[in-house]
Amino acid sequence: MRAVSPSHPRALRVEDYVAGVLGGNRSMLARAITLIESNAPGDAARAEEVVRELLPHAGKSIRVGITGVPGVGKSTFIESLGCMLCRGGRHLAVLAVDPSSTLSRGSILADKTRMEMLTREPNCFIRPSPTGGALGGVARKSRETMLLCEAAGFDVVLVETVGVGQSETTVRSMVDFFLLLMLAGAGDELQGIKKGIIELADALAITKADGDNAAHVEAARAEFSRVLHYLMPPDPLWHPPVLTCSSFTGAGIGEVWEVVNQFQEAARKSGAFAARRHAQTLDWMREMLTQELWRAFTREPHIVSAQPGLERQVLDGKLSATAAVSQLLALYRNSHDPKN
Amino acid sequence: MRAVSPSHPRALRVEDYVAGVLGGNRSMLARAITLIESNAPGDAARAEEVVRELLPHAGKSIRVGITGVPGVGKSTFIESLGCMLCRGGRHLAVLAVDPSSTLSRGSILADKTRMEMLTREPNCFIRPSPTGGALGGVARKSRETMLLCEAAGFDVVLVETVGVGQSETTVRSMVDFFLLLMLAGAGDELQGIKKGIIELADALAITKADGDNAAHVEAARAEFSRVLHYLMPPDPLWHPPVLTCSSFTGAGIGEVWEVVNQFQEAARKSGAFAARRHAQTLDWMREMLTQELWRAFTREPHIVSAQPGLERQVLDGKLSATAAVSQLLALYRNSHDPKN
Repeated sequence: MRAVSPSHPRALRVEDYVAGVLGGNRSMLARAITLIESNAPGDAARAEEVVRELLPHAGKSIRVGITGVPGVGKSTFIESLGCMLCRGGRHLAVLAVDPSSTLSRGSILADKTRMEMLTREPNCFIRPSPTGGALGGVARKSRETMLLCEAAGFDVVLVETVGVGQSETTVRSMVDFFLLLMLAGAGDELQGIKKGIIELADALAITKADGDNAAHVEAARAEFSRVLHYLMPPDPLWHPPVLTCSSFTGAGIGEVWEVVNQFQEAARKSGAFAARRHAQTLDWMREMLTQELWRAFTREPHIVSAQPGLERQVLDGKLSATAAVSQLLALYRNSHDPKN
Repeated sequence: MRAVSPSHPRALRVEDYVAGVLGGNRSMLARAITLIESNAPGDAARAEEVVRELLPHAGKSIRVGITGVPGVGKSTFIESLGCMLCRGGRHLAVLAVDPSSTLSRGSILADKTRMEMLTREPNCFIRPSPTGGALGGVARKSRETMLLCEAAGFDVVLVETVGVGQSETTVRSMVDFFLLLMLAGAGDELQGIKKGIIELADALAITKADGDNAAHVEAARAEFSRVLHYLMPPDPLWHPPVLTCSSFTGAGIGEVWEVVNQFQEAARKSGAFAARRHAQTLDWMREMLTQELWRAFTREPHIVSAQPGLERQVLDGKLSATAAVSQLLALYRNSHDPKN
């Protein structure tokens, strides 16, 4: 009889992952996500198989993205909303996307400590951001993690942006509803809303609407409503509202969720819900394809040696941009020509 | 002795175009631009040569993009600003970019009639948008038209957006300074500012600041300043100001130009001016390259026949997006493989 070392468990088979996830087994879900996040070449094929098997069972959750500057209270908001949802019988998965930093695992662990009540909810599953890798890699892993959580029976997925960089647009492109948390009366440095973020939001919620701050929050609500008025021309389908809430007292948290439900109902009725998901999937495919085409191009030895010199000539005004592009494309085509 | 038919002029040689443009000959400049805009295959090589010869003489103007909704008074603003500049000794080229419509030639001709005073200024050259062709084609033609005008000695280039669609971002990507004209107190339908446009602007100017409208304009200036405050975090280099002007009385027109000059001075001093132009050129090259790579990919016969079915399977939840992308890339690579 051979002893099986617990530190070297047998590699799980695809069907083990699939049965575990479909059975709602948390630790199997966690291991399946680890497989997906793995950069080991041997894992890629199994990961793809697991995703393929689970795909028909995914897609049945409402996916909500949550963003906001550091200090806005994202963790306490998610804890407050999440506990409310779990106690109401929903099954909640909380994911984080942080394409910018290898420190994210540390920061979400800190968040996890702060989300102490939520981690004790039996209906809740919290997963930190995958670390390392290119932006495209993180986006892929996060999307597939989301699909796995759905296959495991979670019917609400909250995706939190972490860190700086492109995480907002990445998260926007994978959720049904995008919520922007804002601070009232903060200085410019604190507010620091990035260009174009407000315009991605399906709703704004001003946090910390309690105590002495309540009056500031009401003033900010009026102010942000004015800003939205100029930014977003009326849309027959949806006017992003400006809400207020307090994670401390719980006031307004239910109203935020009510707005998510109203949005979902209207968007399903009009067909915009399915249309947005389809468009997101096709955009994602196209993005992966163009990234790969560009990568192959820029790694081709003839391009590697010719591109910097041609760019220099263009910047120095010695060669037109179109002529340089023609030369590079001709080089690339010739490198693929079977006659060479 | 052979008669030369004036309706069939001899094809001009490259050196004729180059000498004509460098000599500041308007009709030769116009014919060189027509050559650049030509879609006839025989003209492309000569056009490229003309651009290459003129490139070392280009780049010495200040390039200003001007946008705003229909009804904001773009034409009268350009006429008012343009006449002021020409009378002050500047040499002004006015271009229009309209990627959206084959009707543009008609609409800019109407504008030309409205810009009657400006067309009579000897220092001014007005050129309508190239018609037809893909967005990339229009952008290329407009950029090269701009370079030709600079080589002909024009030291101010105003580039106007026409029509709807992507013209704002196209124009933004080819100018040094981007001016957004706005209306005061207009209804939502009239205002209709597209998402993300305000954030592209280096300055806002509210038009029609005259007569009964002056008070509305002052109120709008305060309002837009508040909006900008939230949208654009303070930048050490440049805070986009909100200005007011009247093309009718001429009030404020000089101040708008003063702001362009202040921007130019600050940006040249900090190096941001050259950096922005270099980045624009490299972005443009990369965009042309990725467009061509994508076009070649989507036209490859194996891809043409496989892509729709794979996309359908992904949307139906039968295949993961990453698996579909892997299959498409493998098909594409095999189609280039010399062994096949």
